[in-house]
Amino acid sequence: MTDYQGFLSTAGRDMRESPIRRMGALLGKQRGIISFAPGYPAPETFPSADLQDIAQSLVSGSDPYVLQYGPTRGFRPLLEQIAGIMDERGAPTSLDRLLVTTGSQQGLDLVARVLIDPGDVVMVERPTYTGAIMAFRNVRASLAGVEQGPDGVDVAALDAVHQRLVADGRRVRFLYLVPNFQNPTGLLLSLEKRRALLAWASRRNVLILEDDPYRELYFEGAATEAEVRPLRADDEDGRVIYLSSFSKTLAPGYRVAWIDAPVPLSDRLEVAKQSADMCSGSFDQRMVHEVARRGILSRRLPMLRGHYRDKRDVMSDALRQELGGLCTWAVPRGGFFLWVALPEIVDADRLVERAVRHGVVYVAGDAFYADDDGVGPGGRNMMRLAFSAAPPDRIREGVARLAVAIREEIEALSPAAPAARPAPPRPA
Amino acid sequence: MTDYQGFLSTAGRDMRESPIRRMGALLGKQRGIISFAPGYPAPETFPSADLQDIAQSLVSGSDPYVLQYGPTRGFRPLLEQIAGIMDERGAPTSLDRLLVTTGSQQGLDLVARVLIDPGDVVMVERPTYTGAIMAFRNVRASLAGVEQGPDGVDVAALDAVHQRLVADGRRVRFLYLVPNFQNPTGLLLSLEKRRALLAWASRRNVLILEDDPYRELYFEGAATEAEVRPLRADDEDGRVIYLSSFSKTLAPGYRVAWIDAPVPLSDRLEVAKQSADMCSGSFDQRMVHEVARRGILSRRLPMLRGHYRDKRDVMSDALRQELGGLCTWAVPRGGFFLWVALPEIVDADRLVERAVRHGVVYVAGDAFYADDDGVGPGGRNMMRLAFSAAPPDRIREGVARLAVAIREEIEALSPAAPAARPAPPRPA
Repeated sequence: MTDYQGFLSTAGRDMRESPIRRMGALLGKQRGIISFAPGYPAPETFPSADLQDIAQSLVSGSDPYVLQYGPTRGFRPLLEQIAGIMDERGAPTSLDRLLVTTGSQQGLDLVARVLIDPGDVVMVERPTYTGAIMAFRNVRASLAGVEQGPDGVDVAALDAVHQRLVADGRRVRFLYLVPNFQNPTGLLLSLEKRRALLAWASRRNVLILEDDPYRELYFEGAATEAEVRPLRADDEDGRVIYLSSFSKTLAPGYRVAWIDAPVPLSDRLEVAKQSADMCSGSFDQRMVHEVARRGILSRRLPMLRGHYRDKRDVMSDALRQELGGLCTWAVPRGGFFLWVALPEIVDADRLVERAVRHGVVYVAGDAFYADDDGVGPGGRNMMRLAFSAAPPDRIREGVARLAVAIREEIEALSPAAPAARPAPPRPA
Repeated sequence: MTDYQGFLSTAGRDMRESPIRRMGALLGKQRGIISFAPGYPAPETFPSADLQDIAQSLVSGSDPYVLQYGPTRGFRPLLEQIAGIMDERGAPTSLDRLLVTTGSQQGLDLVARVLIDPGDVVMVERPTYTGAIMAFRNVRASLAGVEQGPDGVDVAALDAVHQRLVADGRRVRFLYLVPNFQNPTGLLLSLEKRRALLAWASRRNVLILEDDPYRELYFEGAATEAEVRPLRADDEDGRVIYLSSFSKTLAPGYRVAWIDAPVPLSDRLEVAKQSADMCSGSFDQRMVHEVARRGILSRRLPMLRGHYRDKRDVMSDALRQELGGLCTWAVPRGGFFLWVALPEIVDADRLVERAVRHGVVYVAGDAFYADDDGVGPGGRNMMRLAFSAAPPDRIREGVARLAVAIREEIEALSPAAPAARPAPPRPA
C-alpha cells in the first residue's frame, strides 16, 4: 500500500477544505433543502435569450479563435472593455495592467503566489471572505485579523496590529479588503476610511488587495455610486491591486474576472497564470465580451439592484417576523448577504446539523474568522445568510425553518428545560 | 515610487515566462507569419455546427445550473463520462478518483502544489514539455533530467540518476512522463518500458505523473490502440496520477481536462482546486458533456487521426524536399509535433530571429531541456515544429521559408564565406 501522506507537500497536507463548499455539498445530499449557504446569483436573472443568441453567433461566426487557446492576458477586445469599466469606476487604467482570470478566486490565488513566502503576513478583516482565507493559507501565509466597526475595518487597530507585527520582525505584504457589501457582513466601507487606508498603506509601505465583486449591486435609496468608489480610484501611490468579476453581474458559470495591478506586478501575475491554467476559456471570454458590447451588461444593472434589494427585504422582513426578539443584524445596503447574530448561547456551527434536519442551511460565522496571531476564533454565534439565490417564497419558508431550529436549539441548551428531542427528518 | 520587487515572493521573482507563449506573442507582431510554434489543434476540425446546436439547447434548456457556480470536482454527468473514457482506455476508475481541471495545465499545477515542497525533486525526460517545467519550477521543484532512447526514457539512466539523488539525501516525488507522442519529440514510449517504469516506481517508492493529451491521435497504420495503453491501466500499486484532456480531441477553448488519482491524493487536489479557481466553467463542462453524450467525440476520432497524419506527411515530405540532406528527424506515429535536428553548427534559438524575418516561427529546442542538477542545457540545435494548426499549403510554404533561413544561417556561420547580409523584411 502506497503511503500517500508521505508524498504530500507541506501546503498539500495543511490545505483546508472550504466551509462554504462543504455546506454546498450538503445541498446535494438532501432533497428539498433551502440553501442560504453559497452566495450564488439568482439564475432567473441570467439573460438566457441574449446568451442563446450570442452563443449561436459566436460558434457560427468567422472568428477561428473562438475555440482555440487564447493569450494568457485575455481576449484583447474584452481587456479593452474592462479598461472602459475601470474608467467608469473612476480608475483609468492601461491594458498592460490588466489580466483576465478564471474567476476572482484565481485572482486571489495568483496574487498570493506572487507576493507571499511562507510565514509572510496578510492582514484581513475579522470576519473576511473564506475563499481569500483559503488562497492565502494555501501559500502558507500567516493571517492577522483586525476587527471591524459599523463602517468597516478599524484603522487605528489595524495600525496597532501592523506595528506589533513589524516590531516582531514579521513581513507584512498586504491588507485584503472587500470594501463594498463585504462578504460575509454586507458592510460598506466609508469613504473616509477608504482615504485613511490609502494613506496608511503608503505610510507603512504595505499593498492593498481590493476585492470588489459586489460594487454594482448597491441598492437604490440605500447607497449611491459615489459611496462604492474603489480605493483603486484614489490610489496615487500604486498601492492597490484590484480584483473584480462578471460572476455577479452576468453569470458565474463563465469564470471570467480580472485583476488590475501595477505593471511590475501584472507582469509577474501573467507568468504565474501561464503555469496555473495557461489561459481562461476563449468561448467564455467572448460571451462576456459580446454581452458587454451589446450593452446588455449595463442595461441589466438597475434590474439586478432591484432584484437583490427586494430579496434582502423579504429576508429581513421574515427575520424580523420570525426571530425579531432573538437575533440581530444590520440591514445591508447592497450585495448578497445578511450577517445575523444568534443569542450568545447558540453555537452557529453546532446549529447547522439541526437546521439541515429542518431543511435549511447557512454558513456558520467562525469560518470567516482568521487569526494566526493568537486573537483566536470568532463569530461563534454568527451566521451568514445569502438572500441572493432563493426565490422569495423559499426565503420566507427557509427563515421559518431556521426559526424553528433556533428555538429548538435554545430549548435544548436551557438548563431548566428537558433535553429536546431531535426533530423528525423532513419528508423529501 | 513603490518598490514592487521588494514585495515579490521567492516564487514570484523566479517564475520564468513560457517560451512557447513568447513565441506565440511573436505571431501577433507580424502579419502573414506562418507559425509552427504553439501546438494548436486545427480549427477547421472543430465541429462548429454541432457546437452551435448544443450551445443553443443548453442556454435555452431547463437546467438552472448551466451558468451557475458548479461543484469543485466537476459536473457530475461529465465525471461519469470521463469514468467511461478511463474504462475504454483500460483503466477503470471511480468518481472519487476524478477531478475536472481548467485544462491539463491546471492539473500539472495542482499536482505540483500538492506534492512539492521547495527543493523536492521531479524527474523529467530530456527533453520534456515546457508547461510542465514551468508548473514544477513555480513551486520551486528541482528538476532532474534523464535522456531518452528512440522508444522513450532510458530506464537504467533513470534509476542511476534516482539513486544518486537519494544518496545525496534528496527527496524524489515523482517522474513526469508524456508516454504517447511526447511533447516535443513525438516519441511513443514502448510497452516494455511502460512495464519497466511501473516496476521501477514501486521498487523505488516514487509516483508517476502520466500526462496523456495526445493518445487518441495515433495514426492508423503507424501505431495501434494497444500501443497507447496508459501506464495507469497496469498500475497495480497506485503509483500513477493520470492527466488527460478534451483540448486536442474537441477544442482547447473550453478548458476542460481531468485528473485521475488515488483517492487520498484526489481529495487533496480537490481542496487545492477550491482555492485555485473554485470550479471549472459550468457552461464549458456541459458543452463537452453534451458533445460526448451525442457520440460526436468518438465519431470524430478517425477523422482527426487522418487529418493530423496527412499534415504530418505534408510537413515531413516538405522537410525531405527542402532540407533532406541538412536536417534529420524521426517521423512521429501520432500527435502534433516533428522534432528536427539542425546541423550541429546552428543554434536554433539564435535562428528564430532570422526565421521570423522570413515569415516563419517555431520553438527552439533548449526550452524543453530542464536539468537543475548540473547536466546542463541541451537541444541547442533542435527545433519543435507543430504540424497541427496550419493548412497544408501553409505548411509547405512555411518549410520553404525555414529552409531559406537555415541555409542563410549556415552561410553566415561558415568561416570561409563572407558575412551574409540579413534578409530584407518580408512585405506584410
